[in-house]
Amino acid sequence: MSEFEQKKTGFHELIGRMKSYSEAVGLMYWDLRTGAPKKGVEPRSQAIGLLSTEVFKMSVSEEMETYLTFFEQPGHFDQLDPITLKMIKESRKEFDLSKKIPADRYREYVTLTSQSESAWEEAKHNSDYSLFEPYLDKIIAFNREFIELWGYKDHPYDTLLNLYEPGLTVKKLDEVFGTLRERLVPLVKAVQESSAKPDASFLYQPFNKAGQKEFNRYILEQIGYDFDAGRVDETEHPFATGLNLGDVRITTRYKDNDFTFALFSTIHECGHALYEQNISPELAGTILCQGTSMGIHESQSRFWENMIGRSESFWTRYYSELQKLFPEQLADVSLADFYRAINEAKPSLIRIEADELTYNLHIMIRYELEKEIFSGKVTAKDLPELWNNRYREYLGVVADSDEFGILQDVHWAGGSFGYFPSYALGNMYAAQFEKTMRKDLPEMDQLISEGNFQPIKEWLTERIYRHGKLLTPSELVVGITGEELNPSYLADYLEEKFKSVYKLN
Amino acid sequence: MSEFEQKKTGFHELIGRMKSYSEAVGLMYWDLRTGAPKKGVEPRSQAIGLLSTEVFKMSVSEEMETYLTFFEQPGHFDQLDPITLKMIKESRKEFDLSKKIPADRYREYVTLTSQSESAWEEAKHNSDYSLFEPYLDKIIAFNREFIELWGYKDHPYDTLLNLYEPGLTVKKLDEVFGTLRERLVPLVKAVQESSAKPDASFLYQPFNKAGQKEFNRYILEQIGYDFDAGRVDETEHPFATGLNLGDVRITTRYKDNDFTFALFSTIHECGHALYEQNISPELAGTILCQGTSMGIHESQSRFWENMIGRSESFWTRYYSELQKLFPEQLADVSLADFYRAINEAKPSLIRIEADELTYNLHIMIRYELEKEIFSGKVTAKDLPELWNNRYREYLGVVADSDEFGILQDVHWAGGSFGYFPSYALGNMYAAQFEKTMRKDLPEMDQLISEGNFQPIKEWLTERIYRHGKLLTPSELVVGITGEELNPSYLADYLEEKFKSVYKLN
Repeated sequence: MSEFEQKKTGFHELIGRMKSYSEAVGLMYWDLRTGAPKKGVEPRSQAIGLLSTEVFKMSVSEEMETYLTFFEQPGHFDQLDPITLKMIKESRKEFDLSKKIPADRYREYVTLTSQSESAWEEAKHNSDYSLFEPYLDKIIAFNREFIELWGYKDHPYDTLLNLYEPGLTVKKLDEVFGTLRERLVPLVKAVQESSAKPDASFLYQPFNKAGQKEFNRYILEQIGYDFDAGRVDETEHPFATGLNLGDVRITTRYKDNDFTFALFSTIHECGHALYEQNISPELAGTILCQGTSMGIHESQSRFWENMIGRSESFWTRYYSELQKLFPEQLADVSLADFYRAINEAKPSLIRIEADELTYNLHIMIRYELEKEIFSGKVTAKDLPELWNNRYREYLGVVADSDEFGILQDVHWAGGSFGYFPSYALGNMYAAQFEKTMRKDLPEMDQLISEGNFQPIKEWLTERIYRHGKLLTPSELVVGITGEELNPSYLADYLEEKFKSVYKLN
Repeated sequence: MSEFEQKKTGFHELIGRMKSYSEAVGLMYWDLRTGAPKKGVEPRSQAIGLLSTEVFKMSVSEEMETYLTFFEQPGHFDQLDPITLKMIKESRKEFDLSKKIPADRYREYVTLTSQSESAWEEAKHNSDYSLFEPYLDKIIAFNREFIELWGYKDHPYDTLLNLYEPGLTVKKLDEVFGTLRERLVPLVKAVQESSAKPDASFLYQPFNKAGQKEFNRYILEQIGYDFDAGRVDETEHPFATGLNLGDVRITTRYKDNDFTFALFSTIHECGHALYEQNISPELAGTILCQGTSMGIHESQSRFWENMIGRSESFWTRYYSELQKLFPEQLADVSLADFYRAINEAKPSLIRIEADELTYNLHIMIRYELEKEIFSGKVTAKDLPELWNNRYREYLGVVADSDEFGILQDVHWAGGSFGYFPSYALGNMYAAQFEKTMRKDLPEMDQLISEGNFQPIKEWLTERIYRHGKLLTPSELVVGITGEELNPSYLADYLEEKFKSVYKLN
């Protein structure tokens, strides 16, 4: 074997090793959530910490550096296949990010975030922001320090955004969120003032769990979740996790008095899982065998949850079956009333409970605060007041305690700045993809109302899923839709949908 | 910190690392058996192979050697606490075993056993020993080679026995199996000739799974399985696995037309789990946090399964509850008839389906063949005939095809020579422990018939469980019973029990 081939094999083996370790960590995490006995939690957490650290060490090892330096020599990129080339580039990105932080500063930061999450929990429990503020102060300071070490071009916050959405900038987000806000705020107001609000009260009565489970499983089979490459369990907070290409698991949670929670969270996680179950086998066992970004990932969960699962066509096909399972609760509810009820929209305080329409405003509030923090204009001390002002302005509601205001999300306590925008990006990407999909599949509503999701899944697999992380978010979006991220599609979609649900005009 | 303390800390960290890796491997294995999706099996198996190899590498690493050599310097043992000292000794044993095999021979052997297991499967499926014979030949040759490399004192086979039961020898086994055989063969004959055989046919009718599950869980709670430190799942072949001190899982399998299978296999695995759940917390996270040998481990599963679970006292307490759960099947069956039915004994061909009485004869047959193989007297070619002759002699039955004869067990295909005797040792240890327990707890039958297992569990914990691997099997047995392994206790126990069940004399 030539030196080139030897190095290439060695690099792939190193990455394979890291993937196997990550698979073990992923399974241990899944197991902790789905039913590991409580007395085993502490040693299990230690094992997770230890194996995660080993993966980190491999990603910044001398061995890794040797491969990267070798392939970065003039002319070597041209000899590499596209998959290995992209793997080298991704590994280099991670190597540089990790190497630029001095090891002792990183250790201090990890310790801080762990303390900070405990402080946040206590602060939330007591609705006392002052218990959390000093930790948040330090976490912000650390992130400012990291940004300086990592460097930035236009806006310091760009560097954090890029951790989750490669290529995303404040400039771009200001533009798209500006457009979106301009169109959503009046829509939310009109919805609130509508005299034809749906009655959703019948959704919130007891639905037995066995029936919920049966229906959820049926829907998963219908939309094409591959049970030979995954399984469904129950957890406090639903999630999806891809352990390997043939093992992409989802979880859900059954609420006795709200069957929509389990159903739509199941479809949501299934969207994430469909993405990872349908990555090309060529990418199996590589770092490219995952979604390309948080935003694109979220576009798939949101697409299946909202654009499919909350569509009129979907329930044209499945409502009578749901009625048969729950005659006591639904026999007297018409399809039209059911459809309107599951699309009820109203301004609320809690992001994770927000509806499809108002959700994006919750994200914009967080985005603007994060941007101001890393512009250096705002400190931890200022945040509660700014938070409440923005909620009043965008959603017309104000929390009477910080527990339901600034303390509601764990993200900042864990240092995840730059993550929130992904949720709204997901909605925008989804609407933009859907627009193109409808051009390619003009019979889309017909297909959905027949329960024939195969053409839709194939469209998504061909254009998005199979590429894994081989293409960037921007390459995907431009490749598929012919333009960069454009918020108008989401605004159009929401306007059309909610004007109909709320009988506006 | 002194060099001594530094080395000690380093050694414990290395062992802790190995334990965390092993925990990950254990969980991945458990997950494969309990419900991992089939498309994920191949990458999962690779991850298991990779992480297991890492543990092996650590066990023979230069780092390990440095610690061992350091602590083996004159005077250092005296400064070590007993736990670390024992860990050093165990690590040295494993280090030497692994280091004496040339790496390339070991790799060839691992490949061979994997091919051999496939060949065995096919041979068994076709009941054609000739398909397996060439592989078995090579596996035997490898084991002979390993014995030469590892060395031996009296009998080559001793070296293999010691892999599973430290200190066990052919001399000792010949003696105990000789005694046992002399007493069991006539007993089996008498049982067969008895005119008062139990009628067990009512056991083999449909018992619904929900009822079986409920009763199994109830019995587990009653005998003290800690559900906060374990969980119960379903697998094709029941097993117990200790992932860490607070996470010792068991599995079972429900047969629709034989409720005794799930019940007794659950109690059996629970016996293994009680051992591992009750090891002293001082040993948590060390290599001593496990059963001290296969034989002692098996003594606990057999004790709970047979001496408790198949005892008259046990069913005096629980039979009426079982009847209430399955009135259709059991309402007309008396306690006495039920007790006799679950203790039905008759010579049969298949080891894993054998009853408490005849089981030991299956093991002796295998032991004698293995001994003759490693005495050099017997080759793979001779085995089927020898096998059938011994079955005729000891059990009075002969398989009409090798599928139910020499091809029934996977052990030899995987190279596990020396393992089989552990099963019979377990029975002998159990009876010997029980004899002493009855001296200390003369009210033992009373306790069992009241469902009060606490004193029994405490007795076992104090004398066996808490020590983990800190004491050798021999130290345990002599410490508890005042003598080395003695087969008369098992013979006494079986004679008493089966003379009563079969109304002999």
